[in-house]
Amino acid sequence: MALIILAHPNFDKSLANKAIIEELQNSSLDLEIRNLHRLYPDYKIDVKAEQEALLRHETVVFQCPFYWLNVPALLKLWFDEVFAYQFAYGSQGDKLKGKNFVPSFTVGAGEEQYLITGKHHRRIYEFCKNIEQTAYYAQMNYTDPICLYGSSGGTENEIKSMGREHARKVITCLKALAVA
Amino acid sequence: MALIILAHPNFDKSLANKAIIEELQNSSLDLEIRNLHRLYPDYKIDVKAEQEALLRHETVVFQCPFYWLNVPALLKLWFDEVFAYQFAYGSQGDKLKGKNFVPSFTVGAGEEQYLITGKHHRRIYEFCKNIEQTAYYAQMNYTDPICLYGSSGGTENEIKSMGREHARKVITCLKALAVA
Repeated sequence: MALIILAHPNFDKSLANKAIIEELQNSSLDLEIRNLHRLYPDYKIDVKAEQEALLRHETVVFQCPFYWLNVPALLKLWFDEVFAYQFAYGSQGDKLKGKNFVPSFTVGAGEEQYLITGKHHRRIYEFCKNIEQTAYYAQMNYTDPICLYGSSGGTENEIKSMGREHARKVITCLKALAVA
Repeated sequence: MALIILAHPNFDKSLANKAIIEELQNSSLDLEIRNLHRLYPDYKIDVKAEQEALLRHETVVFQCPFYWLNVPALLKLWFDEVFAYQFAYGSQGDKLKGKNFVPSFTVGAGEEQYLITGKHHRRIYEFCKNIEQTAYYAQMNYTDPICLYGSSGGTENEIKSMGREHARKVITCLKALAVA
């Protein structure tokens, strides 16, 4: 049903991302989850394997923490290498055309920090023009990020609970895309 | 005088970036150039060494190709790890306060592709809100990117010539910042 590209440098110790992935795994959805940091701890991405995974699905969720106002480095490397010429773009580069591109972020700060009065001043989507254009250039259908805000605050139970709630939003999104 | 953080996955085979670095090295400026892909081919960044380099300078130039509308992955990792809590931000994280942050990009496509009528629709600076906010959050003085457009076109000599011209713009910028 969908491919989940998970990028978290320390997934086993994460609270929010782990809760999200567990809730997705416990759902009835048929998901292929690729944990990039587990697959490629040395940053040597198997480009062919990643491209083949993309070809198997119509929807791709990018699940990661929002680091320095964008995706983690390994996910950036994944775009740099997997979204290759004549695969994602170029005269024959239409392999991703029409597929759905769904960013799903855990964000340390609260949503109010992403308003003009907050410390980051801009909304999340304004920091994601590069990702949005990456999807557009690969002829994919970009969805505005689904965000879990405040993942660096709260008790362990609160964060896990937010993670499960977030996963349910992702599931709702995937179900809507599947019938669209 | 300035720290040059160079991030190019294949610097030895690059034309534009190599010409830029050579022209900078041939200048009379006192520059410390750190070639990240040569220092860290395994993506294991020596965070302390990088922070110490930052402390030695008042101006930092980030020299790299513009990949997928943003910085290369290793430079993103550098921000994720080197711009650490209580170094770049946090209650005691003022170590970069007042330093100059100068992005210097080689861009494959022509400048016309970064207009609304071009294939990327937005100007380079619009894709860099994440980098701009990274600098701002670290209390640095962000300069709009200095760009060499069209680095993927032209003959070898043309590209090298553009590289040298670009380096002279960077040198002019560094001299202006030094007397500011």
